[in-house]
Amino acid sequence: MASSSSYNSPCAACKFLRRKCMPGCIFAPYFPPEEPQKFANVHKIFGASNVTKLLNELLPHQREDAVNSLAYEAEARVRDPVYGCVGAISYLQRQVQKLQKELDAANADLLRYA
Amino acid sequence: MASSSSYNSPCAACKFLRRKCMPGCIFAPYFPPEEPQKFANVHKIFGASNVTKLLNELLPHQREDAVNSLAYEAEARVRDPVYGCVGAISYLQRQVQKLQKELDAANADLLRYA
Repeated sequence: MASSSSYNSPCAACKFLRRKCMPGCIFAPYFPPEEPQKFANVHKIFGASNVTKLLNELLPHQREDAVNSLAYEAEARVRDPVYGCVGAISYLQRQVQKLQKELDAANADLLRYA
Repeated sequence: MASSSSYNSPCAACKFLRRKCMPGCIFAPYFPPEEPQKFANVHKIFGASNVTKLLNELLPHQREDAVNSLAYEAEARVRDPVYGCVGAISYLQRQVQKLQKELDAANADLLRYA
């Protein structure tokens, strides 16, 4: 699990929200002060209260993966406000179709030699 | 562009937010009253004010694609609160790697017959 390496610094979320970072802060393990942009993106796209709600509904061991996937989505949406990470999904779906077609053609060629 | 088919009904967003759906409502073209779940998901994951801000920063012709990609992301996050649509990206990336490997092997086999 990620943890704040600067023991006396508030986590990136509390710093951004200008509030005291209390022991047990739900954001602190996932938003270290060294990565301010990670929280800034998540806050801009999802909002701090939605993320708090989501994390509280998860088991502790699921929260790091959840934060990292939220941070990935948020960064993609900041970069591409129209498609966000759905743009990556469309691209990958086209790649899969193209590769499947090429593989089918190669296998058909191989059958002729078999 | 999608539009509200029920002329007298408020759009799904205004109905959800219990407010009057005024002419020129930024949500109305993309959240018809027949699809209440679409707005409910987007509201739960992104929040209405974040979506309003995002749409206002886009050109009108970009908004339908933006809403549909947000609705896709929101539905994926409701279904899978830990990975959301990043789960689909990971799955597709593995598919691409697997197909590329199979294609490389098939092409190597073909070279032996060439």
